[in-house]
Amino acid sequence: MSWPRFRLEGCPLLEEGLWLLSEEEAHHLMTVRHSREGSFVEGLLPGRIVLTRLERRGEKWAVRFVEELSASDEGPEIVLLAGLLKGDSFDLLLRQVTEIGVSRIVPLCCDHSVVRLDDGKAEKKLARWRKIVQEESKQCRSSTIPLLDRPCSVEQALTLDLPSSRFVAAIDASAPPLASLDVPSSLVLAVGPEGDWSAGEESCLRGASFLPVYLGHRILRAFTAAAVVSSWAVQGWLGGRRVLS
Amino acid sequence: MSWPRFRLEGCPLLEEGLWLLSEEEAHHLMTVRHSREGSFVEGLLPGRIVLTRLERRGEKWAVRFVEELSASDEGPEIVLLAGLLKGDSFDLLLRQVTEIGVSRIVPLCCDHSVVRLDDGKAEKKLARWRKIVQEESKQCRSSTIPLLDRPCSVEQALTLDLPSSRFVAAIDASAPPLASLDVPSSLVLAVGPEGDWSAGEESCLRGASFLPVYLGHRILRAFTAAAVVSSWAVQGWLGGRRVLS
Repeated sequence: MSWPRFRLEGCPLLEEGLWLLSEEEAHHLMTVRHSREGSFVEGLLPGRIVLTRLERRGEKWAVRFVEELSASDEGPEIVLLAGLLKGDSFDLLLRQVTEIGVSRIVPLCCDHSVVRLDDGKAEKKLARWRKIVQEESKQCRSSTIPLLDRPCSVEQALTLDLPSSRFVAAIDASAPPLASLDVPSSLVLAVGPEGDWSAGEESCLRGASFLPVYLGHRILRAFTAAAVVSSWAVQGWLGGRRVLS
Repeated sequence: MSWPRFRLEGCPLLEEGLWLLSEEEAHHLMTVRHSREGSFVEGLLPGRIVLTRLERRGEKWAVRFVEELSASDEGPEIVLLAGLLKGDSFDLLLRQVTEIGVSRIVPLCCDHSVVRLDDGKAEKKLARWRKIVQEESKQCRSSTIPLLDRPCSVEQALTLDLPSSRFVAAIDASAPPLASLDVPSSLVLAVGPEGDWSAGEESCLRGASFLPVYLGHRILRAFTAAAVVSSWAVQGWLGGRRVLS
């Protein structure tokens, strides 16, 4: 049985090492996880996992620091540029790449994207997506939450400050296979929408030094392609298939 | 725009290179894909992808062989032992590992599986799962469909004729990282259910020479773990990270 897990960065610090829980959080602990005064709770903070104990503070509940737990969020810095997908597919993409361990996700409104977002809709979506990656980072016990950018075009994304090692998933069998490459410590991965990149977007990516990488002859759904490329970077790094970039 | 795609092994062969389509298939081609007499259709057969043309045969429709298309379904033989998952998670697992390229899937009724299948339910599930992997293999343009076994226990699965290179996804950081290993040409990958393996199952797997492999400090959902290990084998093979087994 694992300890209940909370993100603590949003909790007010009452004193050094004592975080106040919201009523909702305390209620969840008591009723769903059957915690009581003195129960252990894992706290996630950026780059840290801490063990804490539940403590009553008048009418409220807080958690007090007990000890640091290992939080080896070591791995490459992965920026994922991901074409928006229809239905629940983009939610699933966010969940999986958060679990797998990307650092930042830039949702792309592509020329062939079926989904169109006006400003009001984009704000609402973004709030929902932020909640998804936050929940998911808790679920997978990651001390960091991926950054999530506002959706933008490929052209706009390329004006961001991106790592210089850049890869784009391709169906071109003459491109080098993904796993033939070593993993840089910092990289960008680009995965198109369901309808793939437009010629204009492809030319933008090529112009910005994105190297096409081949994922095999099967046509992967966009969210599976995102999982495959992210997993290559995280697992390859972990397995020592690294190169300094 | 890609050509419509059909699995042809179930279509009656009227003569050498001429396959009869069912009414449902012909209807789909005409109304959804706007095909007409002479339109091109891609046919998938075990180990082959063929280009065909639509041809009227009286009241019915058939497709006639035009030429072989490349069908490089080359890759390692991957047998995936996968714990049953609740809700839609197992469907998603089947879809993703079919796309990624496993050869055979053995669903496991594990000690900690939330899902319980009696015989009647297992038959119905199996029929549904077979449809899913068939549809998915068409979607991802694979000429082969993964074999799908009847659900069984870990102990029963280990009596099957399995490749001798065997790996089990572990959360033990002292196990070798997945990507530090080269990919054998034939291998078994085991991924547990949501509640992980029981002590008895773990000991069975160890006894059957399954090597624990470490996927990183994040706790992956079972279907993501299945995608990560399968993708390692397929991509690693493609990238030349192979070893003869």
